[in-house]
Amino acid sequence: MDKNILGIDWGTSNRRAYLIDQHGACLAEHEDDQGMLAVGGRERFGDSLAGLLDAMGIGADVPVIMSGMVGSASGWQEVAYLDSAVPLQRLPQHLAPVSDAAWAGRCRIVPGYCYRNGAAVDVMRGEETQLLGAVALGHRDGWLVLPGTHSKWVLLRDGVIQSLSTYMTGELFAMLSARGTLSSMMGGDASDAEGYAIGLRQAALNEPLSNTLFRVRAGVVSRSAPQAQAPAVVSGLLIGAEFAAATRALAAGGGATGITVIGSTALAARYAVAAEHFGLQCDVLDPHRVYCAAISQFHHQAST
Amino acid sequence: MDKNILGIDWGTSNRRAYLIDQHGACLAEHEDDQGMLAVGGRERFGDSLAGLLDAMGIGADVPVIMSGMVGSASGWQEVAYLDSAVPLQRLPQHLAPVSDAAWAGRCRIVPGYCYRNGAAVDVMRGEETQLLGAVALGHRDGWLVLPGTHSKWVLLRDGVIQSLSTYMTGELFAMLSARGTLSSMMGGDASDAEGYAIGLRQAALNEPLSNTLFRVRAGVVSRSAPQAQAPAVVSGLLIGAEFAAATRALAAGGGATGITVIGSTALAARYAVAAEHFGLQCDVLDPHRVYCAAISQFHHQAST
Repeated sequence: MDKNILGIDWGTSNRRAYLIDQHGACLAEHEDDQGMLAVGGRERFGDSLAGLLDAMGIGADVPVIMSGMVGSASGWQEVAYLDSAVPLQRLPQHLAPVSDAAWAGRCRIVPGYCYRNGAAVDVMRGEETQLLGAVALGHRDGWLVLPGTHSKWVLLRDGVIQSLSTYMTGELFAMLSARGTLSSMMGGDASDAEGYAIGLRQAALNEPLSNTLFRVRAGVVSRSAPQAQAPAVVSGLLIGAEFAAATRALAAGGGATGITVIGSTALAARYAVAAEHFGLQCDVLDPHRVYCAAISQFHHQAST
Repeated sequence: MDKNILGIDWGTSNRRAYLIDQHGACLAEHEDDQGMLAVGGRERFGDSLAGLLDAMGIGADVPVIMSGMVGSASGWQEVAYLDSAVPLQRLPQHLAPVSDAAWAGRCRIVPGYCYRNGAAVDVMRGEETQLLGAVALGHRDGWLVLPGTHSKWVLLRDGVIQSLSTYMTGELFAMLSARGTLSSMMGGDASDAEGYAIGLRQAALNEPLSNTLFRVRAGVVSRSAPQAQAPAVVSGLLIGAEFAAATRALAAGGGATGITVIGSTALAARYAVAAEHFGLQCDVLDPHRVYCAAISQFHHQAST
């Protein structure tokens, strides 16, 4: 058996592949726009994967682990969510073999997680792999935050998910920018520090986003606020809503004082500013590093 | 001088005109899709109005009062917002004559209101006319709610605006239905009673909409909730967010126990259900009736 393994973070719009050796070192990376939507149907995932392996020059004996939307109902093969009671460390024992005969035995899909708390249900698919990597790197406890289109806040205790909340932060920002009442004022710099701080402050008051977002427009049309700051205020309102909710949960949950953000440098920096605003410490983990750490865990499992 | 007066509720997408006699009776109504966006530019409002008068067979001596987006920066002529300290009863004294020479002296525009509370700013343009009508019909005190694309919650005391909060309820519902993560599950019946009640219950918990909206999707993809209910749950979350915020304000503001909704039968019925859920009494006023009552107030002013 080859000592290398290929991990693919196969999302909705993009995919990213990492070739990992037996020591967990990343030998090669490849990113392209062949996400689930671009593949164009369940029966075409095999060809799409073949193209990726070809592009990376990877032989037929390298096992493949895939995470993300590839395992959703619209992906290659739907893989049932794990219950959040299953520790992340056990994830390698729950991989689902691809049933497609041409790939069976070689390719496996990482299941997502489903979290239930009374009537509230939340899910992840893809982030569990990042989380396993974080656990492997020693982050077994506390709040892990994965910002993005759908920001995830996850509370871990000894590698077990205690709570999961997803916020449509990036998606709502994109929607509001593209059309509707706010769109005409969303052309400016979303990272403007003053506007961002204004949004964070307002978010801390816990008023509904449907109200506070409108008030960004009201401030501009009444000439009470500069239009150029509007995108940063909106960003502050949306990211601030995550922190405001988490701060209540943190206070209720015995007072953790910090978060660990798994995100790109730019996004992590914005979350670090918000964390400071809300009085939280903030560590940052590189998402590629945690992904490789996770694949390395699967590697050990695959080799046994 | 003619004893009749024409009131036009000239909004973003539509306009509705009411011919009112000296006793406040509505002699004729006309609605069309020639809202601000359809008119196509400031210099074309005069022709658009001429076409409306022609269609209604209204003579050159009938004064015209216009409210709504016609007075915005993208309308016929921008009219500055009134400060919320100005009582609604004084609105007839603050009408802005149209400066267009062909229409000056005959046509006036109702100003909107701007409300400020610390850093929070909110505005209305059009709803002030409905509110004046409500005041004329005896509703000088308490909470008035004007549901719609942008739902307005207004607290009045002796006809003076004490607070104003706008919620992008209808706009967000339309956005989420048209595209994005939730759109594929938004085809069902938004008035499903059970789904609506689920949304209202979750809204009462005051979690951010960016989270609770995602959880509608999470419930469906994890097969914990029927997809057919999703639109009603979303409706309940958005309308419930208004009530949850208002309930906090009501509790803080000395405990009013009811609201008066100015809205169409269908929308008012949905708000009445939410009001009952949140333990509030709910009266309903017909929006056409209050508009005519407002125009009648302008009539008296115009005749003196």
